[in-house]
Amino acid sequence: MLRFSTSGESHGRGLISIIEGLPAGLQIDEELVNRELARRQKGYGRGGRMQIETDKVEIFSGVRARKTLGSPVSFLIRNLDYENWQEIMNSGDCRDNNKAVTRPRPGHADLPGAMKYCHRDMRNILERASARETASRVAAGAFFKAFLKHFGIFIYSQVTAIGSIQAEVWQPNRENLSRFYALVEESPVRCPDKEKEAEMLGAIEQAQSEGESLGGSFEVGAIAVPPGLGSHVGWERKLDGQITAALVSIPAIKAVEIGDGIANAARPGSQVHDEIGYRREQGLYRTSNRAGGIEGGISNGETIWARAYMKPIPTLYKPLLSVDTASWQEEKAQVERSDICAVPAAAVVAEAMLAFVLARACREQFAGESMEQVEQAYKSYREYLDKVWKWKKI
Amino acid sequence: MLRFSTSGESHGRGLISIIEGLPAGLQIDEELVNRELARRQKGYGRGGRMQIETDKVEIFSGVRARKTLGSPVSFLIRNLDYENWQEIMNSGDCRDNNKAVTRPRPGHADLPGAMKYCHRDMRNILERASARETASRVAAGAFFKAFLKHFGIFIYSQVTAIGSIQAEVWQPNRENLSRFYALVEESPVRCPDKEKEAEMLGAIEQAQSEGESLGGSFEVGAIAVPPGLGSHVGWERKLDGQITAALVSIPAIKAVEIGDGIANAARPGSQVHDEIGYRREQGLYRTSNRAGGIEGGISNGETIWARAYMKPIPTLYKPLLSVDTASWQEEKAQVERSDICAVPAAAVVAEAMLAFVLARACREQFAGESMEQVEQAYKSYREYLDKVWKWKKI
Amino acid sequence: MLRFSTSGESHGRGLISIIEGLPAGLQIDEELVNRELARRQKGYGRGGRMQIETDKVEIFSGVRARKTLGSPVSFLIRNLDYENWQEIMNSGDCRDNNKAVTRPRPGHADLPGAMKYCHRDMRNILERASARETASRVAAGAFFKAFLKHFGIFIYSQVTAIGSIQAEVWQPNRENLSRFYALVEESPVRCPDKEKEAEMLGAIEQAQSEGESLGGSFEVGAIAVPPGLGSHVGWERKLDGQITAALVSIPAIKAVEIGDGIANAARPGSQVHDEIGYRREQGLYRTSNRAGGIEGGISNGETIWARAYMKPIPTLYKPLLSVDTASWQEEKAQVERSDICAVPAAAVVAEAMLAFVLARACREQFAGESMEQVEQAYKSYREYLDKVWKWKKI
Amino acid sequence: MLRFSTSGESHGRGLISIIEGLPAGLQIDEELVNRELARRQKGYGRGGRMQIETDKVEIFSGVRARKTLGSPVSFLIRNLDYENWQEIMNSGDCRDNNKAVTRPRPGHADLPGAMKYCHRDMRNILERASARETASRVAAGAFFKAFLKHFGIFIYSQVTAIGSIQAEVWQPNRENLSRFYALVEESPVRCPDKEKEAEMLGAIEQAQSEGESLGGSFEVGAIAVPPGLGSHVGWERKLDGQITAALVSIPAIKAVEIGDGIANAARPGSQVHDEIGYRREQGLYRTSNRAGGIEGGISNGETIWARAYMKPIPTLYKPLLSVDTASWQEEKAQVERSDICAVPAAAVVAEAMLAFVLARACREQFAGESMEQVEQAYKSYREYLDKVWKWKKI
Repeated sequence: MLRFSTSGESHGRGLISIIEGLPAGLQIDEELVNRELARRQKGYGRGGRMQIETDKVEIFSGVRARKTLGSPVSFLIRNLDYENWQEIMNSGDCRDNNKAVTRPRPGHADLPGAMKYCHRDMRNILERASARETASRVAAGAFFKAFLKHFGIFIYSQVTAIGSIQAEVWQPNRENLSRFYALVEESPVRCPDKEKEAEMLGAIEQAQSEGESLGGSFEVGAIAVPPGLGSHVGWERKLDGQITAALVSIPAIKAVEIGDGIANAARPGSQVHDEIGYRREQGLYRTSNRAGGIEGGISNGETIWARAYMKPIPTLYKPLLSVDTASWQEEKAQVERSDICAVPAAAVVAEAMLAFVLARACREQFAGESMEQVEQAYKSYREYLDKVWKWKKI
Repeated sequence: MLRFSTSGESHGRGLISIIEGLPAGLQIDEELVNRELARRQKGYGRGGRMQIETDKVEIFSGVRARKTLGSPVSFLIRNLDYENWQEIMNSGDCRDNNKAVTRPRPGHADLPGAMKYCHRDMRNILERASARETASRVAAGAFFKAFLKHFGIFIYSQVTAIGSIQAEVWQPNRENLSRFYALVEESPVRCPDKEKEAEMLGAIEQAQSEGESLGGSFEVGAIAVPPGLGSHVGWERKLDGQITAALVSIPAIKAVEIGDGIANAARPGSQVHDEIGYRREQGLYRTSNRAGGIEGGISNGETIWARAYMKPIPTLYKPLLSVDTASWQEEKAQVERSDICAVPAAAVVAEAMLAFVLARACREQFAGESMEQVEQAYKSYREYLDKVWKWKKI
Repeated sequence: MLRFSTSGESHGRGLISIIEGLPAGLQIDEELVNRELARRQKGYGRGGRMQIETDKVEIFSGVRARKTLGSPVSFLIRNLDYENWQEIMNSGDCRDNNKAVTRPRPGHADLPGAMKYCHRDMRNILERASARETASRVAAGAFFKAFLKHFGIFIYSQVTAIGSIQAEVWQPNRENLSRFYALVEESPVRCPDKEKEAEMLGAIEQAQSEGESLGGSFEVGAIAVPPGLGSHVGWERKLDGQITAALVSIPAIKAVEIGDGIANAARPGSQVHDEIGYRREQGLYRTSNRAGGIEGGISNGETIWARAYMKPIPTLYKPLLSVDTASWQEEKAQVERSDICAVPAAAVVAEAMLAFVLARACREQFAGESMEQVEQAYKSYREYLDKVWKWKKI
Repeated sequence: MLRFSTSGESHGRGLISIIEGLPAGLQIDEELVNRELARRQKGYGRGGRMQIETDKVEIFSGVRARKTLGSPVSFLIRNLDYENWQEIMNSGDCRDNNKAVTRPRPGHADLPGAMKYCHRDMRNILERASARETASRVAAGAFFKAFLKHFGIFIYSQVTAIGSIQAEVWQPNRENLSRFYALVEESPVRCPDKEKEAEMLGAIEQAQSEGESLGGSFEVGAIAVPPGLGSHVGWERKLDGQITAALVSIPAIKAVEIGDGIANAARPGSQVHDEIGYRREQGLYRTSNRAGGIEGGISNGETIWARAYMKPIPTLYKPLLSVDTASWQEEKAQVERSDICAVPAAAVVAEAMLAFVLARACREQFAGESMEQVEQAYKSYREYLDKVWKWKKI
C-alpha cells in the first residue's frame, strides 16, 4: 500500500517525510523534486516567508543513483528561517518564549487545537497547522507524478476564481496540454484566462491594501487515466471519496465537486449523464464528461477533474475579534506573517494530492514491487481493455 | 478503532454487516435499528422496490439483552425480493441467466466496473453498486447515533433542493430541534419549507412523466459536538476531509461543502471567519458559524454542518444512448427498476455516515472499552474544557 | 488489501464473517467450505459440543453461480445450540440469567476480559473468547485455499506432539503430498506417525479420566510458494512476523517457531543457513530448508513451515482454584463444557491462518481484481524468475 | 493510533524515522534517546561498524522544549560511514559501483529480495535488510519507554543463551529491578548469570576464530502492566500475537514463546494455568505466572515476558556455498562486514519493540491527546479496577 507521512513545524529545523510503497526502479532525483517545490512557492499574493525560503530537498534514503530501491523513501526540507527561531523552537532547552500565542485567530486551528492538545501556548498548534506542511506534500507529489508518467497520466491545475473574480477555464487534453501548461505556469495566479488574470491581480492588491485576505477556487485534473481505478464494492474504496478527502485535507479547502457536481444536481438526468458510443476504429467513447471521469466510484477512462473551493486565509493584517486566553479579555486576534492569497499555491498542492490518490490506486491495480513488473501488469491490462472492451483510448 | 464493513447484493439473499470497535454496555435493540431503516425507505419519488421490501434487521452477534458486549456487532437485513431472484443470484447453481446486463447505463458503475472486474454480465457490478447497500449503512448508523447520544450529540438532515427548486433552510439548534425534527420527518421530501415542498413534489411528478430523474442537495449536521474531534497534525486525520469522503461515498453524491464553503470562497476574509468572544457567565463563544463547526480540521464546538450535492439517478426510464457490449451495436441503455428521485433517502444515509465519522472520532478522543470508562473520559474532558478554556457550551 | 472480519458468540445465533478483497472470478461453493468445517470438528478428545453442531455455511453475498463477484463475501454459520440458549443470549429481552459466570477460569480470558470490558458476568467475555470463533476462520480459509490453488500453493498440517508424546514428522513435498494428506486426514489426532498416534490417544484418555486437559504442538506449512512474498523493507511487512502473529492469534497457541527456529539458535552459523546451488537443468536450488522457506522476511521459494505450541485447554473438569467475584470467596473455577485436547482442530485452524497470510501476500504481489488479471500477473512473474534468476522450481 | 515508520540504508546518508500518535506533553530529549542508542551498540562479538558509528539522534520535529507537541515526531540518525560510501550510495549520480553484490549469502534477504524487487545488484537489498535499521527502532523505543513510565511500566531484557550455552535467568520484579538492571547493563552479553557469562564470551571467541557466527535466545519483559491491554474480540487485537509479530520482525529472530509457552505445551493443564487467589489487603492475585502475563490475548496484570530465539548471523567469514548470479558459477557467498554474535543488541531492540506494542495498547485503552488527559484516564481506570475488581497491584 502506498502511503506517506509528513512531519515538521513551520519554524522548526525542517520538514521530514517518508513515502512507503513505491516500487523499485522508478527514476527520480532531487532536481525534479526541487522544480515542484519552486512551483509551490510562486504566486501573486504570497507573504514574506517565500522570500526567506528557497525550498531544497535532501533525499536521505530509498533512492540510489537516481532510482528508487523499493525501500522507504525519506527526505528532508530544511527551514532556513530556523536560525532565527532556534531559541524558541528547539527540541532541547528553549529560552524565554517571546512568541507565545494566546489570542487565537478565527478560522485557524489555534483555539480548537489548543483545547484538544492542552497547549496554553497556541504556537504549539499553529506551527504544525501552518501551510508550510504542504511543502512536504508537494515534494512527495514529485515522486507520485514520476510514477504516474509510466502510465501516461498527466496531472494539471488551473485557478478558476480569486475572490469573486471568475475566470474562463480550459479543458486540457492530450493535444493542447503543453500549450496549457505554458500558459498556466507563466501566470502569477495560475490562470490561463489573461483578461481575468489582470482583474485577479487587482483584487489581490486591493485586499492587501485593506488588510484583507482572499480565497477562490481551482480545478485539478488528470489526463489519460485508465478505466478501473477505485471501486464500488466498499465505501472507503470509492475514488471520488478518496479525492475529495485528499483535497479537503489541504489547509483552507472547504468544498470540492467532482466534475460538474454542483451544477449537475440541478439538472434533469438526461442532461447530466455522459452517453456511451462505439465506433470500430475509435472503440468505446463518451460524448461528454460532466461526471469528471468517475462513475460509481471508479475511473471511466475520461479525464478526471475536480473543483476545490478555498476560504480566505484566516490571518488578517486587520485582525478579527478574539479573546486573550491568558487574561480572558476580548482583544484583536494575533497576527502571524502570512499570505494575502494562496489559491495558486494550493492548486499546486492539490496536484500532489491528486497524484497521490491516483498513484495509490495504480499501485493496487497494477501490482509488483519493481517498475518492470508494474509496467508489465499495465501493458497486459491495456491489451485486455482493447480486446475485451474495445477500449483503445490510451 | 471503530470501523464497519458491509456486504450484499441488491437481489441476493441479503445484506450482512459487521461493526468493530463499539464499547461494551451501549444500549441498543432491533426496534431502534428498524426505525432508522424505515426512515430510509420513505421519500416521494421512490421506485417499486420500496413496496416490496420492509427492511428488518436481525442482530446476530455482539449484543446481548439490549447491550453491546464489546465484541464485533453483526447484523443481517434480508432481501425479501430474493425469492424472485434465487435462480439468478444464487451462490450455487444458477439457471440460465435471463437478466444479464450488457447495455451499460451512463452515470452508473456498470461499464467501468465491468472493465475493472472483467465481468461480461454487468449485473455482477450493478448488484453491488446499487443503492440498496445503503440500508447497511443506515442500520449501522443506528448504533453510531446511539453511541453519540451519550455525548449529547444529535444528528440531523434537511433537503435543501430537488432539481432546480431551492428551499429555505433551518438552522437547527438545541432549542428548536424537536420542532425541526417533527417538520422534516413528516415531509415527503425531508424539507421543512412547506412552500417549496409543494414545488418539489411537482418537479418529481413532472420528471416521472417525462422519463427523467432528479438530483438535488441536502444539509446534514450534528449539534453539540465537543471541540477537539479530528486533528491538524496529519492530513488523513482532518475531520472535514473525513466527512467529505464519507458523504461522497454515498451513491450519486458528487460534491460537498463544509459550512458555507462555496460562498466563503468568494468573500473577503473579514466576512468569512467566525469571531471569538468571551463572557464570564457564557464562557467562550462564536458570533457566527460559517465554518460549519470545523477549523484546522478540528471541531470547534459549534454545530457541524455540511451540504451535499446529488446527481440525478443514472437509470432513466427514457434511457440514454449506450452500446450493447455483446453485439457492439449502439443501443439505448438498460432500464433497471429505479427511483425517480432519492435525495431524501440519501439525506438519511448521510446522517449515518456523519454519525460514523463522529463516533469514530469520539472513540479516539474518549477511549475505553466500556461505556462506563468512555463516559468518565468524556466527563473529565468537559471539566477540563470548562476549567482551562472557559468552554461551557455543552 | 485482503482482510477478513469475524463475529459471533459461542451460544448466540451464529457466526457471521466478511472477507474483503478477493478478486472476481474465483471458483468457490458451499460444499467446499463445509468440507473444511468438517475437518475442524474432528479429532480425538473433543467435547460434547461437537456432537451438537454440524457446521454448515450459508454464503450470503459476494458469490454468484459458484464464482466470486469481487464484492465483499459474507457468510453465516448458525449455532444449532442457540435454541437452548436464546433466553440467555438473545439480543433483545433475556430472562433471568442462570448461566452467569463469576468464577474465572485460570488461563482463559474470563478475568482480564471482564476487567477490560467492565462485565460483571464473565459469560459476556467467554462467549466471544471461545474457540467456536475459529469456525469462522476455517470457513474463510476455504476461500483463501481456493485462491492459493491458482498459484499451485498447497497448505498442510500435522500434529507433532500431544502432551509429552512427540511424533516423527513428515516432510511433505509435491511427490508425497497426496499420501501424506491421506494419512493425516484419517488419523484421529492428525498424526502420520501411527506408533505415536496410539500413545497420543492413550494420553488423551488418561487426561480425561483425571479431569485434566492436554496441549501439544503441530506443524503447518505451504508447498510451492513462489519466492518474493513478504518484504524486508519495513518491520510490519515481514512474512515470518505476519505468520507468527496469525498463529499466536489462535486460542491457546503461545509459541511459534519458523522452520527450525529454536534448534537453530543453538547451532553455529555454518550448520544453520541453507546453501545455494545452481545446475543448468534445475536452476537455482537449496540443499536444505532449515529456514522454513523465509529469509529476511521474504519467501525464498522453499516450503514454508512453522511449528506452533499449544497450551492445555484452560477449562479443567477438575478445576483449579479461583475466586468468586460476586462473593469474593476463594472457590473452584467455573466448568464450561469443553474439549480435553484440541491440538488437531487447532492445526486445521492454523492452515486457515497461514492460507490467509499467504493469500494476502499474493494479492499484493500479483494484483488485479479479476482472476484473469491475477493469473496473468503470476504467469509474467514466473517467466521473469526463470529468465532473470534461473528459478524454475514451480 | 500509535505507529512509527523507519527508513534508511546501512551506508546511505542516515536513518530517518517518524512516530505518529504520541500525545502532547510527554517529556523527552535527545540525551535520553542517545542513551538507548548507546545500549544497542554494546555487546561482545560486534563487528567493526560499531567502532565507526557512535549513533546520535537529531530530533527534527514534534518536540519543543523537551516536550512532545502532539504532532508527528521525526528524527535523524546519520551514518558516519556515509562519507566513505557516497560515491556508491548517493541518491544522485554514482560512480562505477565497485561494491556490487552478486553472490547472495544464505540466510539473508539477498536472494529473495533481489528476486522480488528485480535488483541485479543485491546491495540494493542488503543495505535495507541490514540490522542497522534497528537503530531507528531503538531510538523510537526511547519515546515509547518514556511514555510507558507514566503508567509505571518498566521494560527489561536478559540474554538466556548464546549458542548452546544456557544461562540461569532472573525473574525481575519491582523489588529486584534496579539490581537486575545494574547486573545486566554491565555484562558484555546482557546476562545476569556471571558463571555462564564467562562461557558465553569463550564461545563467541571460539566462533570468531573459526569464521563462524552464533545465535542464542533472550527474554524480554514488562513489569507493572495493568490488566486489560489487548483484546480477545478479534484475532488481530490479541496482545500476544502483536508481541510475537513485533519480535519476529527483528532480523534473525525466528521463534518466540510467550511465558513458558513451549514447556507448557507438554504439561497437563493443572500444572500450567495460574491459579487466582484473593486476600482482603492484597486483592486479587496469582500464585504463578507461567502464562507470561497474557490470557486470552489480554494482559492479566502479571509481568509480561517472552523468550525470543535468534539464528546465527548469516554473514560468515568462512562463507557458505552460493552462486554468482552474474556468471552463474557456484562460488562462496559474499562477505560483508558483520558481527559474530548480536544477541545482546537484539535484546535491546526487542525492548523497543515490546515498548511499542504496549505503548500502542495503552494509547488505545487510555485515550487523550495530552498527557494530562491520558494520565487522568489511567487514574480513573486504576480506581475502577480497585473498586470493582479488588485489583490493587500497581
